[in-house]
Amino acid sequence: MILEEVDNRLAQYGYMMPYDLGAKGSCMIGGNVATSAGGIRLLRYGSLHAHLMGLTAVLPTENGTVVQLGSSLRKDNTSLHVPHLFLGSEGQLGVITRVVMSAVPRPTSVQSAMIGAESFESCCDILRLARTQLSEILSSFEFLDSETMDTLDKALGLKPVLQSNPRFTILVETSGSNAAHDTAKMEQFLNQCVGRGLATDGVQAQSAKESAAMWRLRESCPLAVAKCGFVFKNDVSLPLGSFYKLSEVVRARCSSLAQRIVTYGHLGDGNSHLNITTHKYSEELYQRLYPFLYEWVVDHGGSISAEHGIGQLKLPYASLGKSSTERDLVRRIKVVFDPNGIMNPYKSF
Amino acid sequence: MILEEVDNRLAQYGYMMPYDLGAKGSCMIGGNVATSAGGIRLLRYGSLHAHLMGLTAVLPTENGTVVQLGSSLRKDNTSLHVPHLFLGSEGQLGVITRVVMSAVPRPTSVQSAMIGAESFESCCDILRLARTQLSEILSSFEFLDSETMDTLDKALGLKPVLQSNPRFTILVETSGSNAAHDTAKMEQFLNQCVGRGLATDGVQAQSAKESAAMWRLRESCPLAVAKCGFVFKNDVSLPLGSFYKLSEVVRARCSSLAQRIVTYGHLGDGNSHLNITTHKYSEELYQRLYPFLYEWVVDHGGSISAEHGIGQLKLPYASLGKSSTERDLVRRIKVVFDPNGIMNPYKSF
Repeated sequence: MILEEVDNRLAQYGYMMPYDLGAKGSCMIGGNVATSAGGIRLLRYGSLHAHLMGLTAVLPTENGTVVQLGSSLRKDNTSLHVPHLFLGSEGQLGVITRVVMSAVPRPTSVQSAMIGAESFESCCDILRLARTQLSEILSSFEFLDSETMDTLDKALGLKPVLQSNPRFTILVETSGSNAAHDTAKMEQFLNQCVGRGLATDGVQAQSAKESAAMWRLRESCPLAVAKCGFVFKNDVSLPLGSFYKLSEVVRARCSSLAQRIVTYGHLGDGNSHLNITTHKYSEELYQRLYPFLYEWVVDHGGSISAEHGIGQLKLPYASLGKSSTERDLVRRIKVVFDPNGIMNPYKSF
Repeated sequence: MILEEVDNRLAQYGYMMPYDLGAKGSCMIGGNVATSAGGIRLLRYGSLHAHLMGLTAVLPTENGTVVQLGSSLRKDNTSLHVPHLFLGSEGQLGVITRVVMSAVPRPTSVQSAMIGAESFESCCDILRLARTQLSEILSSFEFLDSETMDTLDKALGLKPVLQSNPRFTILVETSGSNAAHDTAKMEQFLNQCVGRGLATDGVQAQSAKESAAMWRLRESCPLAVAKCGFVFKNDVSLPLGSFYKLSEVVRARCSSLAQRIVTYGHLGDGNSHLNITTHKYSEELYQRLYPFLYEWVVDHGGSISAEHGIGQLKLPYASLGKSSTERDLVRRIKVVFDPNGIMNPYKSF
């Protein structure tokens, strides 16, 4: 089943899948579970761990054992919660053939706003304010720096929504059940952002068209950087205090070797997509970036792969920050499911 | 750390633990994780799976290996998500010594209401209405049948809040960030419950005192049944269609052997606390109840232990509805952590 198709079916009953991805038109539920897909609404609905209840998998035994794990119940403490091991397992344990997860009521009111800020500290303060003021309806808190906005303009001709040309642009979305309440909360929140001197500018979308224009900027980021030539892509998680420091450290380290240092991502989840672009692949730049960047991330309490797994590229660095005890435990769990090591070999662990 | 102490510390920063239990004054975080504690706000904030990010455990190896699993990041796909295996593991894998989980903004508005209904089907319709009308602020949906209300009165002298003496009493709670918005939503919801003929009666608490009176009824249920003499307690999960049928089936089966069949629980989570009381222990009643009750629950797609694990009492029935493949997988996962089988032996699996 493709995510968007499931979501369309749920819409008929007033429900919705609890996550949403740019790839929803092609990605499949089994893959979403295997990669523990995050997406743009994690702030509101939580990760897939919050929704997964059970699954069926085919194990790589001689005769392809089919095992049903968990149940279709919200509460079931009759066994180890094994289905959760499959979240983020990236095909290492078995092939997922059936998933039971909870759906959420489809929001009848979705509001968007864009906010400009001149310092990264202000962005963090705005996030804290959103967590308390928008609280139960806050669904997205996305971040784009000025280099991202410039790339969107140069590469795709997409102009900014905010006129103030701020150093940082934030896209906030709420999902709720009452448009009057939600717009009132958003208005109060934006007023406080400006009133407290955190934001230079704040614009609430007045129509679906205005909202779409805001999201087009955020969703076009991967395409815009791809147009620059070669891209060293990164998908890291960091504590907020180090989130943008990484971009500054990398900028200083690359100096003239890089064309652009473009940072956007899900600030609300601490997830930075840091892209270093060049006209074409440069071995010198690669050597300057890695493993430096991964080591810096781990030294600052972050993860070298927030959403996109380890795979082959990051395999040499997969053990960064992990103890031998943890790695050994994980390998032995894998053996329980896949004693011959035939599932997605030469990757992950 | 005791749950209430952690929660009090978080309160200073405007945050809150994402779960709440009757035992909060004495229960400890490690135990909450080991039992995958649910509690009364699961509807709003999700299970502990939604909040757990990492943990440290001492493994039962010869030299007591200390292993740190997961991280303190919302998104981290660099390894198997092993911390989630500890949720509901009941001391079978290791001793949890440190937990990293996310806190939630403390709600500034908490509203309560009690609703009466004459059929269980209406209770389910009211739940569906609450899921869409109260949506993002719905935090509790608790259920008490008339036998429960009668027991509360006879055993503890606690009188009902609703004057209509309905067959079923529902306690709804919302947790939000704006009292004006939340009371408006609750009012509209109650009006619709009565207007659509689902509820006989609906009362919104007008003060903290009125709210406390409602919660006292729900929270006194375990004490009230304990006063009846001997209690066969059950903690089961069921799909809504079978939730109250079980109570009716058990009532018919016990006939005059039982004193009271008392049903209350977290209807919003499908979690029924079904209590069969007698003056003193009756082997005949025990034989009539078990394994019949457990088999009925599993046959109807339920779980024989929603929250309270397997332990010793339910061990003979732990394999009900579980395939040998699943049980074998779980046993082999246990061996990875506890090769000598010394952790909480003779229990669970």
